[in-house]
Amino acid sequence: MQKEAIYHRPKNNFAYAYDERTLHLRLKTKKDDTLSVTLIYGDPYDWKDNVWQYHKQKMLLTGSDDLFDYWTTSVEPPYRRMRYGFYLEDESESLVYTEKGFFTEQPLDTNDYFSFPFLNEIDVFKAPDWVKDTVWYQIFPERFANGDSSIDPKGVLPWGEYPPARDNFFGGDFQGVIDHLDHLTELGINGIYFTPIFKAKSNHKYDTIDYLEIDPQFGDKETFKQLIKACHERGIKVMLDAVFNHSGYYFEPFQDLLKNGEDSKYKDWFHVRSFPIETKPLPSYDTFAFEASMPKLNTENPEVKEYLLQVGKYWVEEFDIDGWRLDVANEIDHQFWRDFRRTVKQIKPELYILGEIWHDSMPWLQGDQFDAVMNYPMTSALLDHFAHETISVETMADRLTSLLHSYPDNVNEVAFNLLGSHDTPRMLTLANDRKDLVKLMYMLQFSFPGTPCIYYGDEIGMKGGADPGCRECMIWDKTEQDTELFDFLEELISLRKSHSAFGNSGSFHFVSAKDGVIQYKKETTTETLLFLINSSEVIQSVEDLSLSNETTSLFGNKIKPN
Amino acid sequence: MQKEAIYHRPKNNFAYAYDERTLHLRLKTKKDDTLSVTLIYGDPYDWKDNVWQYHKQKMLLTGSDDLFDYWTTSVEPPYRRMRYGFYLEDESESLVYTEKGFFTEQPLDTNDYFSFPFLNEIDVFKAPDWVKDTVWYQIFPERFANGDSSIDPKGVLPWGEYPPARDNFFGGDFQGVIDHLDHLTELGINGIYFTPIFKAKSNHKYDTIDYLEIDPQFGDKETFKQLIKACHERGIKVMLDAVFNHSGYYFEPFQDLLKNGEDSKYKDWFHVRSFPIETKPLPSYDTFAFEASMPKLNTENPEVKEYLLQVGKYWVEEFDIDGWRLDVANEIDHQFWRDFRRTVKQIKPELYILGEIWHDSMPWLQGDQFDAVMNYPMTSALLDHFAHETISVETMADRLTSLLHSYPDNVNEVAFNLLGSHDTPRMLTLANDRKDLVKLMYMLQFSFPGTPCIYYGDEIGMKGGADPGCRECMIWDKTEQDTELFDFLEELISLRKSHSAFGNSGSFHFVSAKDGVIQYKKETTTETLLFLINSSEVIQSVEDLSLSNETTSLFGNKIKPN
Ligand SMILES: [Ca+2]
Ligand SMILES: [Ca+2]
Repeated sequence: MQKEAIYHRPKNNFAYAYDERTLHLRLKTKKDDTLSVTLIYGDPYDWKDNVWQYHKQKMLLTGSDDLFDYWTTSVEPPYRRMRYGFYLEDESESLVYTEKGFFTEQPLDTNDYFSFPFLNEIDVFKAPDWVKDTVWYQIFPERFANGDSSIDPKGVLPWGEYPPARDNFFGGDFQGVIDHLDHLTELGINGIYFTPIFKAKSNHKYDTIDYLEIDPQFGDKETFKQLIKACHERGIKVMLDAVFNHSGYYFEPFQDLLKNGEDSKYKDWFHVRSFPIETKPLPSYDTFAFEASMPKLNTENPEVKEYLLQVGKYWVEEFDIDGWRLDVANEIDHQFWRDFRRTVKQIKPELYILGEIWHDSMPWLQGDQFDAVMNYPMTSALLDHFAHETISVETMADRLTSLLHSYPDNVNEVAFNLLGSHDTPRMLTLANDRKDLVKLMYMLQFSFPGTPCIYYGDEIGMKGGADPGCRECMIWDKTEQDTELFDFLEELISLRKSHSAFGNSGSFHFVSAKDGVIQYKKETTTETLLFLINSSEVIQSVEDLSLSNETTSLFGNKIKPN
Repeated sequence: MQKEAIYHRPKNNFAYAYDERTLHLRLKTKKDDTLSVTLIYGDPYDWKDNVWQYHKQKMLLTGSDDLFDYWTTSVEPPYRRMRYGFYLEDESESLVYTEKGFFTEQPLDTNDYFSFPFLNEIDVFKAPDWVKDTVWYQIFPERFANGDSSIDPKGVLPWGEYPPARDNFFGGDFQGVIDHLDHLTELGINGIYFTPIFKAKSNHKYDTIDYLEIDPQFGDKETFKQLIKACHERGIKVMLDAVFNHSGYYFEPFQDLLKNGEDSKYKDWFHVRSFPIETKPLPSYDTFAFEASMPKLNTENPEVKEYLLQVGKYWVEEFDIDGWRLDVANEIDHQFWRDFRRTVKQIKPELYILGEIWHDSMPWLQGDQFDAVMNYPMTSALLDHFAHETISVETMADRLTSLLHSYPDNVNEVAFNLLGSHDTPRMLTLANDRKDLVKLMYMLQFSFPGTPCIYYGDEIGMKGGADPGCRECMIWDKTEQDTELFDFLEELISLRKSHSAFGNSGSFHFVSAKDGVIQYKKETTTETLLFLINSSEVIQSVEDLSLSNETTSLFGNKIKPN
């Protein structure tokens, strides 16, 4: 066996508490190199006549990617503590793998084994229960609907009559959202993610001026309360966007710093590299990227931290919002996020915390910081295959398998699965207007572990390139909406609701991926769903489906049992 | 190249902030499989004409074990953020390895690379500065010295005239420690780790009755204050032992639970599995191991947490102690330890927090919980070779190399390196009285990254098997002390002080390990120390030392430059 390929390290995706009783264990081996893996485990203190009392349990091959096989099992240790190792076999040899390395004979000393010292409930990663049954809808408020022209910003353009530009306004607002909740209810979504709504200068509002005020172009706090109430009445959760990494240029403390320099009482609110403050050629203070107008906030400063934690609290306490989406979350310190979680969950334990992180996010998903991150690795796997056509179904399946095994299952169940956003071109555009491919992407997105999100307008076939192209005004003229896509999504959402195996209660694993066809299964104890997605240009026949007489078609082409 | 052997994942020992400016990067490859590794890195937002501005830097092979080569480099990213990948070469091919896998050509999209999103100073692992220059001395107070017979426990035995038993007493106390501080000063140690001193029934005091009282057999709070003062005057730090995982049987809340069962106001202070409370055959509540007399405390209960945090604070605030050693630290929840750190460091930022963990401890050493753990993997590597003689020098060097690369450098610098304790047989006994081997172990221990600890009495050649054998009364009769060992240790300690490369300012790496001889180097910018340790039974000659004319002997056999 290829020892160098074998990997395990506890307290991350390889060994974690799935719930307050259950541990999940995983092992990575070289692909097709190991025939079977057995977990050896026991209570560290369970000895009889000087012999450790261990048990054995076969592990399941839960997935493979291009390089590795992944083995998984789950155990409920009666005293919530465990020592363990792995017994591996191939045709010619057997090995025992533990924290101390490889052995030909099973070690007798429990100190040599891996340790999961104690399953403390408070450390278990646990997102709010409602999240995994949520289908999200992302709204960019300036462009969703104009319901109140009396508060339109100066120079507002007639709805949809001009292409979106970086600095134009069309007057979208809260009343517009309230007016169109029927559209969302009909679609079946039950969570709205709003990009920022706080006072700001731009149309996207990521340049916060005041974290405690609503931008007047969207409405007042009373209207916002009505909006939340209307959503809650329809069973729709509401998530806001928190831009805590940096403020806007017109944020008062930053203006004070610009004006008073070293004498500003806010000089430690930012990361000033040198005085006097310069904005060009390069800013003399840390920023988001190199944007002089986006000064990075010093979240290590107790005053700033206290201020932002108050902001986090305020909108939960006063407006009963259900989630915070955290912009540029990985550039802020972990200590801040731990205190943020503690602060907001104290007020509302069922609040959802979603970090914007594009990369591997295990350090933020240990139960002490976020409930989820925006699942861009899923996004890119799907887009690379279906839209960009740069990877085969095999590679897409490999990447998704690897992704699923790089996080705990309870993390995967609440991942925020998006295919597009205000930061990316729209999926229909990326797919070169191939609606059939868009549908296949939706099918995979909606049945993949996690919670899917629809970017406003995608459900009615809107198109658009990179920002600002993807921020066009929502089309409300029914005759211009693509109702075929809407109906398709409506049906997917309804399937998630009516079949728990379709949604997040079903386990997910790939059966095969070849010739442009992926085949995967989702299972609960009562139901097995088989998915067949053909993204090739031709009709494909799939063998060995081994369907039973009870098999019925749920969606798409009818299949006949053999 | 063996792709499956190549491993990197950020935010642990493979990529971490060494200090507020510096990132360390490591890569693991199959042993002898890769000729060179180059880091490709740059600021994520540094683009010119749509091309990412990256840099390249050769990585150093900083160690190898039986299976892997470890490559290391360090970077100071000017804007404290970085995207990076690795360029690997062997004779026949080259590869680029990033978060998204392997490429033959360097990817253009920074999203494909690994990310160290931002170096936030507050997240940097940072132990107190004084720790890395500390040499510890562990005192088991009941057995160190009896300085005040007026407070001897009932049934006390004459000092050293009986073998130690699990339940006998010899009357050791604080006054005894005060009386013998000269011994410690002469030896040169500058930190004392006391096993528990709080009110308890046993001689070891791990069965706490009252966390806020000193056990009367040791003295009163006034004497303890004098002891601390006397230590501080000599530049000696004092660390106490906190047994927070479980209480003693006679801890009042537990007694209340035994008495009142379900009606006890302390019923949620413990983890009761079922009422009525039973202590046998198995306790009906969680315990340390299966010891009915050691009920596990429910540290998730806010009342218990508050109580224990107060305890943590009290001894720092009132007595100015310098460190807390945390018993059975890994069975308590991470949340508790995060709050513990915050609480005690708020009072005394320079306090040292040392966890008792025998296994891989990365999850506790991320900067938010402990400053160090007891380095038992080092202990066992040395003992297995020098004492048990079950492994060769090659295997010992492999294990130590693997250990050093499994933690960040700043973690290694403050590891608590022990060769014996109240929990293990004494090293001279383990080494079958081979004093020469004991000396070699000390040499390696004292020059290994971390802070060495001497178990009381080991410095004068005391012997003893497993508990209770290793807890004999300290021998104060000079004629019965082994002064050769004392002098040897005194010299090692003095070398650590006079040569910064000997201590924790020197980088450490193995040059070779064969025929019973290990050769390693410690370097600073001004000095290089070469260590040669021959644990074989015969004289060995070592070739290719490539010594310069300026080479001098610091210790041991004189060597002649060629
Ligand atoms: Ca309006
Ligand atoms: Ca005494």
